[in-house]
Amino acid sequence: MSDSTALRDLPAYEAARGEADHPHSAVARFGADTPLPLDAGGVLTPFQIAYQTYGTLNAARSNAILLCHALSGDQHAANVHPVTGKPGWWETLVGPGKPIDTERFFVIASNVLGGCLGTTGPSSTNPATGQPYGLDLPVVTIRDMVRAQAMLIDHLGIEKLLAVVGGSMGGMQVLQWAASYPERVFAAMPIATAARHSAQNIAFHEVGRQAVMADPEWRGGRYLQEGTSPRRGLSVARMAAHITYMSDSSLHRKFGRRLQDRDGHTFSFDADFQVESYLRHQGEAFVDRFDANSYLYVTRAMDYFDLAADYGGVLANAFKGSKTRFCLVSFTSDWLFTTADSRAIVHALNASGAQVSFAEIESDKGHDSFLLDEPEFSAITRGFIDAAARAVGAL
Amino acid sequence: MSDSTALRDLPAYEAARGEADHPHSAVARFGADTPLPLDAGGVLTPFQIAYQTYGTLNAARSNAILLCHALSGDQHAANVHPVTGKPGWWETLVGPGKPIDTERFFVIASNVLGGCLGTTGPSSTNPATGQPYGLDLPVVTIRDMVRAQAMLIDHLGIEKLLAVVGGSMGGMQVLQWAASYPERVFAAMPIATAARHSAQNIAFHEVGRQAVMADPEWRGGRYLQEGTSPRRGLSVARMAAHITYMSDSSLHRKFGRRLQDRDGHTFSFDADFQVESYLRHQGEAFVDRFDANSYLYVTRAMDYFDLAADYGGVLANAFKGSKTRFCLVSFTSDWLFTTADSRAIVHALNASGAQVSFAEIESDKGHDSFLLDEPEFSAITRGFIDAAARAVGAL
Repeated sequence: MSDSTALRDLPAYEAARGEADHPHSAVARFGADTPLPLDAGGVLTPFQIAYQTYGTLNAARSNAILLCHALSGDQHAANVHPVTGKPGWWETLVGPGKPIDTERFFVIASNVLGGCLGTTGPSSTNPATGQPYGLDLPVVTIRDMVRAQAMLIDHLGIEKLLAVVGGSMGGMQVLQWAASYPERVFAAMPIATAARHSAQNIAFHEVGRQAVMADPEWRGGRYLQEGTSPRRGLSVARMAAHITYMSDSSLHRKFGRRLQDRDGHTFSFDADFQVESYLRHQGEAFVDRFDANSYLYVTRAMDYFDLAADYGGVLANAFKGSKTRFCLVSFTSDWLFTTADSRAIVHALNASGAQVSFAEIESDKGHDSFLLDEPEFSAITRGFIDAAARAVGAL
Repeated sequence: MSDSTALRDLPAYEAARGEADHPHSAVARFGADTPLPLDAGGVLTPFQIAYQTYGTLNAARSNAILLCHALSGDQHAANVHPVTGKPGWWETLVGPGKPIDTERFFVIASNVLGGCLGTTGPSSTNPATGQPYGLDLPVVTIRDMVRAQAMLIDHLGIEKLLAVVGGSMGGMQVLQWAASYPERVFAAMPIATAARHSAQNIAFHEVGRQAVMADPEWRGGRYLQEGTSPRRGLSVARMAAHITYMSDSSLHRKFGRRLQDRDGHTFSFDADFQVESYLRHQGEAFVDRFDANSYLYVTRAMDYFDLAADYGGVLANAFKGSKTRFCLVSFTSDWLFTTADSRAIVHALNASGAQVSFAEIESDKGHDSFLLDEPEFSAITRGFIDAAARAVGAL
């Protein structure tokens, strides 16, 4: 227990836990008069959404762009993160003068339902008990997340979004937005994503969940109440996931078989190789900023995502009659969400008669490419967003 | 603790632990007069090798084929497994009338050094203490494994092997045999393997080791003495590894997004999807037959493998002047040991002037293809072995 006690004494860990109810960002609170219907059945009430905005909403309310974050992301897309002190996760793309230009657009980023940075999730206080929800929070879906985001957009007084943009799980939300609220989305940009989670991806998520739940300190999800922390399990989950975010060639280029601060093999189970010590660091750092139960909820939401299933098994039906313009992006070395996954969406959009463009971008950086500085990706994003803005007269 | 107690009561688990010192197979014991030099420094003495043989050694002693097993394999290549009761791991290829024909060849399969089925490994009794070695066993390498195998071959009175054959880690041993003992190997068949472990593969192994070592029941490797069992950690390690043994398309074909004995999502963290319950089963079943510390040792040996490093960084030098004939095999959908990995070996063999053939076999079954019934692979194996036998007059 001494290790976990030490962890809980860390300022970062405490800071992260503090974000659940009282985040360092704006919060929209939805009371008994505005319950959130859930796919699992019933409603969630009360609940809250933590969000950041950048830039200014114009008088016509026509320049709002919603960013949807990925599994381990949050609302801090373009500001210093309150827990880690690091730059926002999409500062490559979002900011003054950047492709998603906060000097011209009103950019909104909200923490997803089930998350741990201030939107209601398993580490939030359950008002019925005064204790963290833990597993008493119903399992949520991508559609639930988007339904909640739509309530936030209502709350902000915005009828129609200029664009909804996101990668990976964020891209799933973009697709769900376009399907559920076509009249509210002028332009949609789903990046490095899929219309349904594959068997291989479900398998990797299941390994991560089992790693968390195998940690005796997880305590059936009641670790916050019991003063423990399933940090070892969550760290292993993150390590496994992190490999899937990179490509074989980027791991090779970055690390190869280089040794970590040593001249030869130690013939031990220490981190002899740089790639081992890098992975261990990724695991450790993640535990400080992310909640283990949120990891279960958010991975589960991705696994359940199968957009076609809600439309008689025909993906094209999800976009029938849609006037939204789409731009899809995939990356050549992304083996988690492949170009084939994006093409399947493009084919469905073509079949539904929607307006769609698609770019497969050459990169050896794997799935994480969408979070990195990729000039061609930036140029495509700028072009797509600017064209949309011109079309609605928001430029 | 109740779970692990329950597990230790299982006959399979007890049976597996019993194999470490007293296996259900032949055992060659090497005493103080024949110590095993180790790459880590020093020697291992005494030690033992557990092995199986199939067929009969001919009078000329020219029909012996050595099989080298993969990470989770053992000496039970072509007989019912004493712990699981299942068929041997290579009965697709080895047996009467099969490509590696036990009616014509004398086939030897030995458990690797560091393993847990009777060759000295971390679960074996340390004669110095009367307790299981645990982490007191020095970390071993592929070269150590092969050095031990060579002593077994001496022990069996065989000067030259007709062939050495193995896939994955078994293929690493085949390469090491050809490099260390070229005059003792007439034909070598390294399958679905690489001359060095890649950064991505090291990364996956490191996740597995961290999963084992994160389990509090691992107890710094002393779980046998302390009556605990890191089964949760080992199970997670196996689940992660198992995904890498299959291809995305084989997982899709086998499971897709089909649900397990239910009509809809349960909105829980149960195994809703077939792929989840399959993986959980793979993890659980592995724990009954494999030792957690052996998992650390054997993965480490693979990580350390870099054949060229022992030859001035030039792989071709490992095979300089070799008269061994080689046949390499890769499988199109194997993303763990790719065709490119095999080609790198072929190029080195070409550069060294060795006799080499290479086949890339079309299969969507991923790395595990070499353990499955793949007719083209069987035909190639039969052809290569028969040609070698004819060349030495052993047919």
